[in-house]
Amino acid sequence: MNWQTIEGSVTAPQGFLAGGVFCDIKRLGTGKGSNKGVKRDLALLVSETPATVAGTFTTNQVCAAPVKVCLERVRRGLARAVVINSGNANACTGRQGLRDAQAMTGITAAALAGRHISAEDVLVASTGRIGVRLPMENVKKGILLAAGQIEATRQGARHAVEAIMTSDTRPKEIAVEFRIGGRTARLGGMCKGAGMIQPGMSASGKRPALHATMLCFLTTDAALDAATLRTALDAAVARSFNRITVDGDMSTNDTVLLLANGKAGNAPPRAGSRDLAVFQEALDHVTLELAKKIVLDGEGVSRFVTVRVRGAKTGGEAEAAARAVANSALVKTSWCGGDPNWGRILCALGYSTATIEESRIDVGYSAPGGRKVLFSLKGGRPTATPFRSLCAITTAAAFDLHINLNLGGGEALMYAADLTEAYVDFNKGDVNDPSTLGG
Amino acid sequence: MNWQTIEGSVTAPQGFLAGGVFCDIKRLGTGKGSNKGVKRDLALLVSETPATVAGTFTTNQVCAAPVKVCLERVRRGLARAVVINSGNANACTGRQGLRDAQAMTGITAAALAGRHISAEDVLVASTGRIGVRLPMENVKKGILLAAGQIEATRQGARHAVEAIMTSDTRPKEIAVEFRIGGRTARLGGMCKGAGMIQPGMSASGKRPALHATMLCFLTTDAALDAATLRTALDAAVARSFNRITVDGDMSTNDTVLLLANGKAGNAPPRAGSRDLAVFQEALDHVTLELAKKIVLDGEGVSRFVTVRVRGAKTGGEAEAAARAVANSALVKTSWCGGDPNWGRILCALGYSTATIEESRIDVGYSAPGGRKVLFSLKGGRPTATPFRSLCAITTAAAFDLHINLNLGGGEALMYAADLTEAYVDFNKGDVNDPSTLGG
Repeated sequence: MNWQTIEGSVTAPQGFLAGGVFCDIKRLGTGKGSNKGVKRDLALLVSETPATVAGTFTTNQVCAAPVKVCLERVRRGLARAVVINSGNANACTGRQGLRDAQAMTGITAAALAGRHISAEDVLVASTGRIGVRLPMENVKKGILLAAGQIEATRQGARHAVEAIMTSDTRPKEIAVEFRIGGRTARLGGMCKGAGMIQPGMSASGKRPALHATMLCFLTTDAALDAATLRTALDAAVARSFNRITVDGDMSTNDTVLLLANGKAGNAPPRAGSRDLAVFQEALDHVTLELAKKIVLDGEGVSRFVTVRVRGAKTGGEAEAAARAVANSALVKTSWCGGDPNWGRILCALGYSTATIEESRIDVGYSAPGGRKVLFSLKGGRPTATPFRSLCAITTAAAFDLHINLNLGGGEALMYAADLTEAYVDFNKGDVNDPSTLGG
Repeated sequence: MNWQTIEGSVTAPQGFLAGGVFCDIKRLGTGKGSNKGVKRDLALLVSETPATVAGTFTTNQVCAAPVKVCLERVRRGLARAVVINSGNANACTGRQGLRDAQAMTGITAAALAGRHISAEDVLVASTGRIGVRLPMENVKKGILLAAGQIEATRQGARHAVEAIMTSDTRPKEIAVEFRIGGRTARLGGMCKGAGMIQPGMSASGKRPALHATMLCFLTTDAALDAATLRTALDAAVARSFNRITVDGDMSTNDTVLLLANGKAGNAPPRAGSRDLAVFQEALDHVTLELAKKIVLDGEGVSRFVTVRVRGAKTGGEAEAAARAVANSALVKTSWCGGDPNWGRILCALGYSTATIEESRIDVGYSAPGGRKVLFSLKGGRPTATPFRSLCAITTAAAFDLHINLNLGGGEALMYAADLTEAYVDFNKGDVNDPSTLGG
């Protein structure tokens, strides 16, 4: 372990400022999750100096206006600031939505006058209700207000993370410190999640083989060139955010952005170097911890389940098997009950696109990350493991489900959640109060 | 319309006998849905004379022992009887399960002594808990009891349909009468469903492009050769049972069997004949009505939604789009709330494998089968249709959702249901009472 956890999040690295304000976007069009009129809804994140940038975005064909703007701009590999609003996704808003997203970057650049930032240096992200135009007057007021309040402090970062929350019940933050090129550097991050969570992001926005609104903003004062940063972020997202599912729905707005401003003064690490490995390790830790926080705080989630599939014919088949199990309504409701079920699991494996042989399948349970696995099924047959022993594991707040298909070397894992009455209640809304209806 | 609805179900056609008894299978291993100790759990369906037979079965790779037995036997194209139990799926029961399924057919043949039926003439189906061995002593007692009680009456059929129910809240039956080859013939059916419902059946058990435990037993006194019967059944299932989804989970036991004993005395219809068209029309009606009854009686279902997709590039893409919408947790919870949502629908379309262009999509609502569609979205933009007008449609017990992708000629439809707290409650079970846990 070449990093250590420190206090704070996006302002922990040198040279980053953040802030968050309330400008009445939420009241104008968001759901049940918002504490109307009291929660912050616009955040600014600014680097004092030019930073290299990398991003990964939803591969949903319906992608929100801010994602379109970011996809274009991250190609340049440089950025100075990110403006983020909650309460309105600016998705399915047509050309006007695109103009509004672009205007947010222009307003931000202007509001940060004196910092020599152009609109093109500003990235943008939105989350909240789909299909409603942004209240641009409020957004503008919010950006101006936030620009006057950004700070390189813990409080600045805390205001920012509060402003990006929607149905999240708690802020999700982390920061680590590590040594790179003889210097001490830091990496911090904040994210939001809660529903519409099964990201399938790629750097290009092109469709990967797989499948939230989840937003994540990462900062580091380590120096890395844009291409290296992108490769590192892609790898980290593949092992973290792309491995989580709350409800199997992939959002129109998923965005992860990583800014590296080089204030630590290290020489940018080369491919294959130990320095880069250290950075990757820190980034992997930060993204995985943030991803897990999203599942744990998922809408109505009462249990966190890590689905570990091995022995599939290929990695792709292991992935398909893990996703089928992690997204099965019947499996997820059995988790809600704390049931160490294997019948529904076999059923989901059987309709997945993975090749299986019933008589070879092992299913077991352990404590999270635990080595001691109690098997309920071996070679397709129930074991003698007492039901109570299995329940002792599966009624805990978190457990690991181990599936071995015993057909090959393919492995995959998914961080998943149960399906509860609270999820349904939260998402069904009330047609007599349209503000409770989901985007 | 070349058929008319009549009273009854599987005993409405001439020469069929049915019965159902209680033999304590349910108490020994089933879920919450069973009225322990009081409900029938074993049914027999017998043709007085040899019948041609066709069947379609789950394409889940984990397929139950009775499905394996049927797959083998329906190839012969002839059958005399079907034995069915509820309370235990005889799935994931290995070689012993296969021996038990075969034994059920042997016991049935022996119990029907005097009717000249061999074990190979008997088909078998099971539904209920997965992974528990059948209590064969009870099953045997049940078969002997049922064999003594089968009747060509409405009551015999009613006892049979009661015996195949699991979490079903009501029996599902239908019968029609039609003219074929100058004779009056009848077609009757019974089915069960409720959970684990998204069939993807094929006659061969081979995997189709698509994806309940649902069981359906159909009888007709029309004469049809086995090959024609199979083609007709495949077409009917593709338009009915394979178009329904309750929870997106495909069961290990899905089975549809159709027996034709020729008692009506018609000449078997040839391909392309009007007689065959009449039969197909009757069969399509019977299977579609039974399929809809399964959705309407789905676990916790409060709303029935017909998802109609058109304008897709291909039929396959239309299907993918319709299934993505019909199985989205967020879309289904919005239906629970009676919300005329389009944002979540666009989101689901966007992550489906269907090609879409946001700016071309129309989304509308109508009463079931209604011609008057109120559009909430046209060309990707919200319409001026008042929210209240849309809610008037979507808060009804059933409505149609119309999606036009405006990209081609591909069409598909799915019969779907909402996702409710009652579904979660029903399926989560209680680990302190293992009999409530699902298979």
